Amino acid sequence: MNAQPEYRPGLHILASFTAAAAPLEDMQACRESFNGIILRHELQKVGEAYHAFPGGGFTAVIALTESHLSIHTWPEHGLATFDVFLSNFLRDNSATVRAIYNDVLMYFGATELSKTELQR
Amino acid sequence: MNAQPEYRPGLHILASFTAAAAPLEDMQACRESFNGIILRHELQKVGEAYHAFPGGGFTAVIALTESHLSIHTWPEHGLATFDVFLSNFLRDNSATVRAIYNDVLMYFGATELSKTELQR
Repeated sequence: MNAQPEYRPGLHILASFTAAAAPLEDMQACRESFNGIILRHELQKVGEAYHAFPGGGFTAVIALTESHLSIHTWPEHGLATFDVFLSNFLRDNSATVRAIYNDVLMYFGATELSKTELQR
Repeated sequence: MNAQPEYRPGLHILASFTAAAAPLEDMQACRESFNGIILRHELQKVGEAYHAFPGGGFTAVIALTESHLSIHTWPEHGLATFDVFLSNFLRDNSATVRAIYNDVLMYFGATELSKTELQR
């Protein structure tokens, strides 16, 4: 179970953060922010699913040629979980993973609760 | 940065595994398998994105009311990364997270390279 693969795809950041209810409820604004972040970091989106829940939260998963982003929000708890995972197929994207995470924290005006960096 | 949130969404398993090239290239068969797994575990899909790459790999992200699944395959390396994250909104889904992971390993005839369990 501990064999090393020959190929290591790249860096995955998994985080939880608190934020005000307003951005945690505004799925369309989040989509626009994510689209801007994807464009700014020269990534390529190949599919996405955004879903708003009746209670005010939303969930989104975005497929990139370089792997994925995901977010799940619980505005009733002032909480979100966010993931960004980018493979290094064309270049080393580790710095981009960290930059995207910071962009997302900034967009939400978020306070980090937990962050895990996993080299996959 | 180490504050405990009041609400803990649930268990996330992140894994890497090796498998034969055939299932790592067959996106439609994977989609059917995932749909069966989602149904069998009584989860609710609210969106998905599947994308096949010219080189033979594919990527998929599936939004569930309970969070998400994702997979990225590199058949040229005999490798995939897989994630399953389920929140505990209606029930404790930890056992389901582990069961889904085992279902996916079995479907791919996979050998686990790495597995991380993260309580989010």
